[in-house]
Amino acid sequence: MAGSDEMSAEERLIARYFRPLATAPGAFGLDDDAAIVTPPPGCDLVLTTDGAIAGVHFLPGDPPDTIGRKALRMNLSDLAAKGAKPVGFLMSVALPVTIDEAWVAAFAAGLGEDATHYACPLLGGDTDHTPGPLSVSMTAFGALPHGAMVRRSTANVGETIVVSGTIGDAALGILLRRDASLAKSWRLPEALSAHLNDRYLLPQPRNALAAAVLQHASAAMDVSDGLAGDLAKLCRASSIAAEIDVARVPLSDAARAALAAAPTLIETILTGGDDYEVVLTIAPSKLGAFRAAADKAGVAVTEIGRVMAGEGAHFIRDGKALSFARPSYSHF
Amino acid sequence: MAGSDEMSAEERLIARYFRPLATAPGAFGLDDDAAIVTPPPGCDLVLTTDGAIAGVHFLPGDPPDTIGRKALRMNLSDLAAKGAKPVGFLMSVALPVTIDEAWVAAFAAGLGEDATHYACPLLGGDTDHTPGPLSVSMTAFGALPHGAMVRRSTANVGETIVVSGTIGDAALGILLRRDASLAKSWRLPEALSAHLNDRYLLPQPRNALAAAVLQHASAAMDVSDGLAGDLAKLCRASSIAAEIDVARVPLSDAARAALAAAPTLIETILTGGDDYEVVLTIAPSKLGAFRAAADKAGVAVTEIGRVMAGEGAHFIRDGKALSFARPSYSHF
Repeated sequence: MAGSDEMSAEERLIARYFRPLATAPGAFGLDDDAAIVTPPPGCDLVLTTDGAIAGVHFLPGDPPDTIGRKALRMNLSDLAAKGAKPVGFLMSVALPVTIDEAWVAAFAAGLGEDATHYACPLLGGDTDHTPGPLSVSMTAFGALPHGAMVRRSTANVGETIVVSGTIGDAALGILLRRDASLAKSWRLPEALSAHLNDRYLLPQPRNALAAAVLQHASAAMDVSDGLAGDLAKLCRASSIAAEIDVARVPLSDAARAALAAAPTLIETILTGGDDYEVVLTIAPSKLGAFRAAADKAGVAVTEIGRVMAGEGAHFIRDGKALSFARPSYSHF
Repeated sequence: MAGSDEMSAEERLIARYFRPLATAPGAFGLDDDAAIVTPPPGCDLVLTTDGAIAGVHFLPGDPPDTIGRKALRMNLSDLAAKGAKPVGFLMSVALPVTIDEAWVAAFAAGLGEDATHYACPLLGGDTDHTPGPLSVSMTAFGALPHGAMVRRSTANVGETIVVSGTIGDAALGILLRRDASLAKSWRLPEALSAHLNDRYLLPQPRNALAAAVLQHASAAMDVSDGLAGDLAKLCRASSIAAEIDVARVPLSDAARAALAAAPTLIETILTGGDDYEVVLTIAPSKLGAFRAAADKAGVAVTEIGRVMAGEGAHFIRDGKALSFARPSYSHF
């Protein structure tokens, strides 16, 4: 019958650009309705889902090769914070009709690099056209020993609060993306403003830290909606309070320079989103071993405060608690 | 710190409307970054993802309680076709700012009914606002014995082709939704046009048939992009041809009546989308046992053709192959 054995436009696009990313046997080369994943014996499968929408999680003009990578890294960051090792991901892409094949090629190429780098192959997906903005919704899978997932709700009074990497870079980066003249008022040299922009475009999920989190942390979560708001969530889930020493919150050279020029940026730094770092609580007796494991993994970790009885996340500077106009960033 | 221990608008919405659907222990009451799913010992986890976008997969005016149910049923239908038993689902919802809380309440109530009915609880998700149309992206999980997933690519020459339920109802239903006057030209009484409309709004996934598919089918897939186009995919994946006897394709009373009044609707019926039935191939020796199992499950199944050497899906009527202007429906 004429035509019925031809591939549709969607099938051709998938075969050409997305099939090469589907290297896991359970993906069946994207040639079935469904995929298969089997956690190793004795392991749980950890599931996380995060969507990235143009104009909300990234800017419509962001380079196409960064968009899929950012969406994947948002999900990888959740796996890292839970102590899980990546297994693979599913992707639903809704493409405006204005997107051309060159865009899809660049998008898939960037995504493929990350899928390889993080050992997180594409397992399956769904491609549609949309009358709305581009959106990429992913579900990532990780594995860890049965019952071992590091929760938000298991922090204990007396523990130390630790955060990975640096805080606030992406939140400053998006301000720069929206108003390039800020680089001048923040007196940032080109290299430092490029650093902030890069941290916004491409989060650095801390998957190298996952094994150390799994082994040593009492509680942990991904910092994606700002350190202040996310710590408040951890406090609520664990029924504890957090006291943070603002002077110890790790900042990049770029964030430090911007903050020196514009001290009110402290609120953006502590409450802005898109850090994709891990915040965790840990018994003081385990700190040494955790630090050693983090060093070995090549991930900077910083003690920023402690868990106390009470409620809420308190950010202390010069003996006083900061108060924020907008304590939590929400993509919602 | 003022405000930092308050829930955000997103958290309140999730706690109020979506947490009651998260009845699986691994969902942690939607109170963590991630969820856990552990397939039963010796089982694989089957993954499928499907998105529903307003204006593409449903109409913006569709009743809110049907939209989440339809998205879930689209995914459940894939699990049924693979022979898998539902385990749970993840959901990413992108809500236009125009959506109010009453809408979310109705959406969640409908979805909750189906989650209970199909024993497929919410495991986790992600809620965002979008400048674009409402979209609901789901990933559903099912379990089946290790290595037993029923593939598209394993049909054999000489087997019988069987389809569940009836074909074409939803494709006629959407035509009626777009132009109510068609009911008159198709001479459909109210009850019959309501049937077509219902089949479009709420697919009837054949999860009751999954165990029989798993036990007896050689190859199977969900019919979502039209019988002709989906059978062509199965033929390509299995490197075989399908010969379908058009007169045997099961039609509802409503579709039969519409077709009698407007014979050209045969193309819409065979190539339109949204059937959410299962098409499968089966060795003739297993047909009896399969029929008995389907009867017991309460799902109608019909033999519509056979697998032959060659390529493509051929629809034969009065000894001649039909040819279609647009052989496959695509939501893309």
